[in-house]
Amino acid sequence: MAFWGVEVKAGKPFIHRFDSQLGRLRLSSATLGSGSSNKKSIVQCSVGSNPPINLCSLLPEKVETSPLNLEFEEDDEVTFSVVGPTSVHLSGFYYGENEDDCEDRCGLDHY
Amino acid sequence: MAFWGVEVKAGKPFIHRFDSQLGRLRLSSATLGSGSSNKKSIVQCSVGSNPPINLCSLLPEKVETSPLNLEFEEDDEVTFSVVGPTSVHLSGFYYGENEDDCEDRCGLDHY
Amino acid sequence: MAFWGVEVKAGKPFIHRFDSQLGRLRLSSATLGSGSSNKKSIVQCSVGSNPPINLCSLLPEKVETSPLNLEFEEDDEVTFSVVGPTSVHLSGFYYGENEDDCEDRCGLDHY
Amino acid sequence: MAFWGVEVKAGKPFIHRFDSQLGRLRLSSATLGSGSSNKKSIVQCSVGSNPPINLCSLLPEKVETSPLNLEFEEDDEVTFSVVGPTSVHLSGFYYGENEDDCEDRCGLDHY
Amino acid sequence: MAFWGVEVKAGKPFIHRFDSQLGRLRLSSATLGSGSSNKKSIVQCSVGSNPPINLCSLLPEKVETSPLNLEFEEDDEVTFSVVGPTSVHLSGFYYGENEDDCEDRCGLDHY
Repeated sequence: MAFWGVEVKAGKPFIHRFDSQLGRLRLSSATLGSGSSNKKSIVQCSVGSNPPINLCSLLPEKVETSPLNLEFEEDDEVTFSVVGPTSVHLSGFYYGENEDDCEDRCGLDHY
Repeated sequence: MAFWGVEVKAGKPFIHRFDSQLGRLRLSSATLGSGSSNKKSIVQCSVGSNPPINLCSLLPEKVETSPLNLEFEEDDEVTFSVVGPTSVHLSGFYYGENEDDCEDRCGLDHY
Repeated sequence: MAFWGVEVKAGKPFIHRFDSQLGRLRLSSATLGSGSSNKKSIVQCSVGSNPPINLCSLLPEKVETSPLNLEFEEDDEVTFSVVGPTSVHLSGFYYGENEDDCEDRCGLDHY
Repeated sequence: MAFWGVEVKAGKPFIHRFDSQLGRLRLSSATLGSGSSNKKSIVQCSVGSNPPINLCSLLPEKVETSPLNLEFEEDDEVTFSVVGPTSVHLSGFYYGENEDDCEDRCGLDHY
Repeated sequence: MAFWGVEVKAGKPFIHRFDSQLGRLRLSSATLGSGSSNKKSIVQCSVGSNPPINLCSLLPEKVETSPLNLEFEEDDEVTFSVVGPTSVHLSGFYYGENEDDCEDRCGLDHY
């Protein structure tokens, strides 16, 4: 498996926990969910008890998708939340850390 | 081979299945197809029976191309669909997993 | 060598052929050439006899550059063409597949 | 651990110092903090005593997030500063350089 | 060291030469410098005696930063120039090609 996706609703933070079977997570981008508000929605991320960091700001009818290109592999909980009226869909993928894949992946080594 | 591209029409989902000969798929970006509507088209992705996730939202005459930077390597079916009036072209490439390529690719190792 | 760039003029497709000396090509982005039209120009790509796929849509004075992040390593001919009034400049780079580079590149292995 | 994030306030530069335990830093993107100004905020970076370089320019209600995709691994101090009225949130991640990770990461080798 | 940055002024091309100590250069993005013009500035790149290729087009108050994601490792001179009224700041980083780094970088292998 590789793809990872989640919808984060306003006021309902999503908690991501590291899973050694799945490995390091690449967070590729964020896209606005459905809604009729014209106000912006900001995606925030907080690791453990650190203050939240703005990852992107999505503007309805102007900029509804933003690349993020982040990676997460921490033991601490990672909390994604949305400040604004509209839910945000996050998408990304797992690199995969399965030992058995190791040999199979030889051809993937270049990127 | 490397390049992968497909046009996903509104209402006609495209199903991607993993092929061990082709290997892991990188989905690079999405671009609006031809059409005269000024309404947005949203690209969604669903893996197996999971709920669809919005990957990007394309706005005619404003933002017609969006980077995606996702990867797919799952055994489950991956369904790409478009919500909106206009078809969307997806483009990407295969990393390649052919054992025979392994030695040839030594110089590609760095990226 | 690494950098690759070409100007594709409207109505004059550019054909890219794989060269084992140069190796896998990374196509990084597309930018509008000079011109006074306010109509959009679409970059398309076709591999062998497959139908063309829209890679990006460039809008004068709004979005004149688009990331592409594609890779090409096929034996088939790859045809880049422009639908629209203005030429488009494509830029990218070769990963390099020279056996002699292999050892030298050890330090590049991480990315 | 992997995620790295910091809020850089206008007039209060943030200094990043290399930490061999954490390794090379990838700076993925920048996003406007909260504020009501409609003037742009520019993120600058200066290494050691070199003159500052503009990394991105964020425009309220137009372009509030920008990809950066930079890497830092220098012994010199790296100073991030903001020219403009609004703070900017920087986000990125550490690649990780722990010897013990080396074998575990075999499956990650492809990207 | 890793970070690389330069301001290219209009009419004053900047020449980049390969340095084996520094290795392959990644050019990450371009951002407008200070200025009050509302006309666009185009970044061009020319390798050796090849014709210049447009890398991006920056539009004041609309799109002031553009990702480039290019790589340079050529023996020939690489000339970056700006066509337009405003200087452009280029930023990127060196991958590093020092043999001694090779073992230390084991943990960086995955990306």
